[in-house]
Amino acid sequence: MPSKTALALAVSCFTLAAHAASVGEIVKASKPADWRALDPDNTLYMELPSGRVVIELAPEFAPQNIANIKLLAKEHYYDGLAITRSQDNFVAQWGDPDEKNPKSIGSAKAKVKGEFAVPMASDTQFVRQKDIDGYAPQVGHSHGFPVGRDPKAKTTWLAHCYGAIGVGRDNGVDSGSGTELYAVTGNSPRQLDRNITVVGRVVWGMPLLSSLPRGTAPMGMYEKPEQQVPIKSVRLASEVPEAERSHLEVMRTESATYAAVVEAQRNRHTEWDKYAANHVDLCNAPIPVREQAAR
Amino acid sequence: MPSKTALALAVSCFTLAAHAASVGEIVKASKPADWRALDPDNTLYMELPSGRVVIELAPEFAPQNIANIKLLAKEHYYDGLAITRSQDNFVAQWGDPDEKNPKSIGSAKAKVKGEFAVPMASDTQFVRQKDIDGYAPQVGHSHGFPVGRDPKAKTTWLAHCYGAIGVGRDNGVDSGSGTELYAVTGNSPRQLDRNITVVGRVVWGMPLLSSLPRGTAPMGMYEKPEQQVPIKSVRLASEVPEAERSHLEVMRTESATYAAVVEAQRNRHTEWDKYAANHVDLCNAPIPVREQAAR
Repeated sequence: MPSKTALALAVSCFTLAAHAASVGEIVKASKPADWRALDPDNTLYMELPSGRVVIELAPEFAPQNIANIKLLAKEHYYDGLAITRSQDNFVAQWGDPDEKNPKSIGSAKAKVKGEFAVPMASDTQFVRQKDIDGYAPQVGHSHGFPVGRDPKAKTTWLAHCYGAIGVGRDNGVDSGSGTELYAVTGNSPRQLDRNITVVGRVVWGMPLLSSLPRGTAPMGMYEKPEQQVPIKSVRLASEVPEAERSHLEVMRTESATYAAVVEAQRNRHTEWDKYAANHVDLCNAPIPVREQAAR
Repeated sequence: MPSKTALALAVSCFTLAAHAASVGEIVKASKPADWRALDPDNTLYMELPSGRVVIELAPEFAPQNIANIKLLAKEHYYDGLAITRSQDNFVAQWGDPDEKNPKSIGSAKAKVKGEFAVPMASDTQFVRQKDIDGYAPQVGHSHGFPVGRDPKAKTTWLAHCYGAIGVGRDNGVDSGSGTELYAVTGNSPRQLDRNITVVGRVVWGMPLLSSLPRGTAPMGMYEKPEQQVPIKSVRLASEVPEAERSHLEVMRTESATYAAVVEAQRNRHTEWDKYAANHVDLCNAPIPVREQAAR
């Protein structure tokens, strides 16, 4: 049926479309300098039975929480834990399923200062997106991450877009530590912005989290231990042998090429499109990621 | 781990929280008049091997497409077709997987006029949401559905929120018919608004679509026929024996109670919440649905 193709053409980031301004063509015409490789010291591999989820960390925005998460990963804290929750249109969450005999957190901290927003001076490479947003006075991208920004309060924060990774916490602002993490798997819950620490985003393998069966207990918790998804390991990429690494690159959000990508999302001009919104929500402007060509 | 509970408390629509204004408490305190039963003549049951997906149709907004879809359902067109596509952070889509020997559409039309927007006069029961929106001059709810609205053009349209059901089409505005339908399973793709006909939304069983494995061919198409998900049947609820119906009710979006729900989403005041956004995106304001109490 041709309509399958037609619908997809209009929205798939990497599908070529009829006009010069399409995202697919922009990506195709991009130059090597428009891309950056992931930093192995700020990339996590979460190994699930179904494959690898690659997470890019954003040390500019949550340095203390990220330091603790890296320590937990280095000491193999996450190995053998599980995804315990999958709530439809919201998050998948993982941590220690054994509440009675919790695993030792080794030399990591049990509580880390909440880093819900950082001084605006931290958002180097910030490129403002001109679109209005209900959750932030300004939005844009910094270091490859979607961010909100308040020039009056002089703060910037990572936005809860699809794929964002956050630090579960209790009611206390400083009660999280990275032992419980979640990934956004539904409509971007921007109401969580400035309420919880975001540490990065999934750049590869998102379907391994988003297509998990939903838990049927309240809040999407899995009812039975056997429904939980075991975590084989979480490793910093720099601690994985070179040959076993995922070689990914992300489009530089400070590049003119990415500005063109955003504009192509703002006003779509394929043959399929009949109405150009002249707007794109922060979380509807995808940040292209691709596998590096063989080196 | 308490943080699981704490994170969920802040966001789960039906979880009781500490303050009087929480959505959970509003729902609990609601009156029978705040709810309406689904109209069996405008409700579809899609029966999958995994269970039933319940779709509420919105005849005020796409009468011609809905008439054709009802005809297709009455003549059992969809029975034996399949979900052929599951694209991460976008849509699940179904239709006839056999392109070479397509199934007869019986007395239904092969092409139906695109109903991307309707005259504003059609949006009776419209209640405007005061929040700003990048995709529409005004947003709100009408007849239980999230809508965008343009007072200058005097038009209203169903918004592509999570769970929205749309009519796949080819490049032509009038090239859809309802033989190909999709459900939004990712971050609300509002850029599709006014570009395609939306006919309703999933009100129950969304996880059966959203947690499907993602297709690995371009645009999330399933590569092999055996990966496709067979559709056992699609029926109008009124054509299903009373004893086999799903008895659901939806909160009336024109009620003061729903206005309170939206406000509770706009400014969250549980013990967990540290920052109230004073804003809620159209697609982040859930419309409560529940099973009717035994009658």
